[in-house]
Amino acid sequence: MFSIVAILVALGLSGAPALPQQPVAADAAVQATVASAGFKAAVAALDRDFDRHVAETIRLTEIPSPPFKEAERAKVYLELLKQHGLTDVEMDAEGNVMGLRRGMGSSTGSAPLIVIAAHLDTVFPAGTDVKVKRTGTRLAAPGVGDDTRSLAVLLAFIRAMDAAKIQTKADILFVGNVGEEGPGDLRGMRYLFTKSKYKDRITAFISADGTGTGNTITTGAVGSKRYHVSFKGPGGHSYGAFGLVNPAFAMANAMKRFGALTVPKSPKTTFSVGVVGGGTSVNSIPFETWMDIDMRSESPAELQKLDASFKTLVAEAVAEENAARSTAQGKITVEVKLTGDRPSGETASSQRIVQIASASVRAFGLTPSLTFSSTDSNIPISLGIPAITLVAGGTSDRAHALDEWIDVEKTSSLRGMQIMLATLVTLAGMQ
Amino acid sequence: MFSIVAILVALGLSGAPALPQQPVAADAAVQATVASAGFKAAVAALDRDFDRHVAETIRLTEIPSPPFKEAERAKVYLELLKQHGLTDVEMDAEGNVMGLRRGMGSSTGSAPLIVIAAHLDTVFPAGTDVKVKRTGTRLAAPGVGDDTRSLAVLLAFIRAMDAAKIQTKADILFVGNVGEEGPGDLRGMRYLFTKSKYKDRITAFISADGTGTGNTITTGAVGSKRYHVSFKGPGGHSYGAFGLVNPAFAMANAMKRFGALTVPKSPKTTFSVGVVGGGTSVNSIPFETWMDIDMRSESPAELQKLDASFKTLVAEAVAEENAARSTAQGKITVEVKLTGDRPSGETASSQRIVQIASASVRAFGLTPSLTFSSTDSNIPISLGIPAITLVAGGTSDRAHALDEWIDVEKTSSLRGMQIMLATLVTLAGMQ
Repeated sequence: MFSIVAILVALGLSGAPALPQQPVAADAAVQATVASAGFKAAVAALDRDFDRHVAETIRLTEIPSPPFKEAERAKVYLELLKQHGLTDVEMDAEGNVMGLRRGMGSSTGSAPLIVIAAHLDTVFPAGTDVKVKRTGTRLAAPGVGDDTRSLAVLLAFIRAMDAAKIQTKADILFVGNVGEEGPGDLRGMRYLFTKSKYKDRITAFISADGTGTGNTITTGAVGSKRYHVSFKGPGGHSYGAFGLVNPAFAMANAMKRFGALTVPKSPKTTFSVGVVGGGTSVNSIPFETWMDIDMRSESPAELQKLDASFKTLVAEAVAEENAARSTAQGKITVEVKLTGDRPSGETASSQRIVQIASASVRAFGLTPSLTFSSTDSNIPISLGIPAITLVAGGTSDRAHALDEWIDVEKTSSLRGMQIMLATLVTLAGMQ
Repeated sequence: MFSIVAILVALGLSGAPALPQQPVAADAAVQATVASAGFKAAVAALDRDFDRHVAETIRLTEIPSPPFKEAERAKVYLELLKQHGLTDVEMDAEGNVMGLRRGMGSSTGSAPLIVIAAHLDTVFPAGTDVKVKRTGTRLAAPGVGDDTRSLAVLLAFIRAMDAAKIQTKADILFVGNVGEEGPGDLRGMRYLFTKSKYKDRITAFISADGTGTGNTITTGAVGSKRYHVSFKGPGGHSYGAFGLVNPAFAMANAMKRFGALTVPKSPKTTFSVGVVGGGTSVNSIPFETWMDIDMRSESPAELQKLDASFKTLVAEAVAEENAARSTAQGKITVEVKLTGDRPSGETASSQRIVQIASASVRAFGLTPSLTFSSTDSNIPISLGIPAITLVAGGTSDRAHALDEWIDVEKTSSLRGMQIMLATLVTLAGMQ
């Protein structure tokens, strides 16, 4: 997840005469939740428990969890889920860890199943210093907000619900999942929704991803295309073979053109070069250089347009290098390999999950904003399963940068957690 | 070393009336060497021994020897030098291995000392497949010609001189040295000529580097400048922080401008991007990208001009990126770190070492060509010590590329080896 800069779509306020009935029904349902003795007891537990929540955030942040190397953090999280008294605690074949909080209808086997998930992986490679630097309520560390705090939020929810003896109609599956970031390409969610034993039972999905005021509801799945682009050439001695085509120059030309593309602000469309590499020694013309690039859009049509422009400019850059220098020993060739392809889509604002989340935001005095993003919700959204992504209160910035930070100031953090918890238990049907 | 494409400076033929006397004296000295029974016996030994020479070339090639990781090959070569009966066989503090073949004047301690060296290192990183693929007399493998075969040539010389019972006035130090390629920045030679126990005794230096007809005498040291250039920025999420400056785009701009520079063909001046890297994940704007670049010229003035252009274009590329995108989270900064600085210079064609090498080339029916290059000889040349670089016969191509090959066809290979041996023993004063 990330600091949301997406277009905000203000939801209509309840009571405005032209709106459909659902908001009123949703508001009533959430208000009943929030007014209940059970929810109040849960909130009191979250409040009492807050220091532990912060400590768990720090502990989990300091376990490195690079893409495809989530195992160490997953093992610790699995143990925590066990300690929190969930049933069916397990790691699935993809590496996701999860446990079930059984609802009232669970014995019949036909209870609805709601999944709430936070992702285990961060974008940071092995070797990154993940020690948390704390200054008052501010915690700075790579991955602290994206998405480690949410893992701790899920644990706090289980403790609060248990302390308040909250029972729900639906089963709730708490998940720490792999593969949300970068090369993971949503592999954790793909497995959960298409291969796991729960795949046909999930009726609603909440991704707890990131830290922020708490009024943001991601209902739109930003589509993305990612490529590993490798430029190959004959290579040779930097001096002796001077004048031969150089894949680094072809790649530079492609990158420069890529950087100069113009994209619409709305629908939000973006591009980036994320990783570059190649070459063997300073005194050799490389035989290969490569780059990993990322393109996204709220609009499938804009993404397709950007994708076509990218492919054209890569081909042009290669042709220019082959024309600019000698191909006597071989030409520059390029391979554009698709490494990520996230579906776009949207959970309609008329869906119950969006209505309840919006009502929960309003119940805590905020105005809901529906946004687009690229999160674990992309997978259920693309499968037609109602899904949203929520943030858990507090403030944060610099996600994906080494100076990432969150502020766990208690009042604003608890407000966001309450919004998310109200959404979860109202959806699950509080008894 | 490399396939020489440098400017050829044809030496005057002996007998032309306007030329100085030295060629005649040198030709006479070399002719005396070549006509001697000792030299003829040595040539017969090289001929008998040729298959072993090829086998040793293959054996040594298949021991990986990346820059700064020459130790494994060095250890094997040290053992071979011992087995060849040299004295004072040792590895010095820098990692060079060497052994002395004592001359007649050695007991007085004041004998001249001639060094002949081949470099242990190749440009290829650990993990490169260095298995030799043999097709007839053609051997293909990374590093086989640059400079592994020369290591085997030195061993063949020792055996041939011993078989022929050749004694010389001067001591000859046979060296397998580290640090000729890329990042090594001539560290082996810097140590030998400025720190080793031999540093004040060396009167002449021959670098045996590369495979080729044998008429090429490198007397000019091509100067080079190498930089590790790192571009740093604030980084951030590829989507959430879209619009922030990206160091990959700044670097691309610099690379593209670098590739578009024009340089003179004569004095030969070259530039290359050799290695690129940076970034942490496909969905993050990198906080750092970097490139290793190489610039060379036969002319110190042209190198300085190129160096200035490079520094200007890097600064411009950084400024353009800072103007093109948002610097709200921080600007792109750049660090240009000097990683290689090879001195240029020239061993004058009137020097005895050049005269004798030229006469040796002529003695075998070829026309000597004096060239510029960047080799281990750069160091002694910059210190005013007579030094040349020679190739050992045969044919080769694609040095520094994965498809590097040499052809060890016997006649042409032996011719080059005889030219080098005639130069060595004439210089050393054959008894």
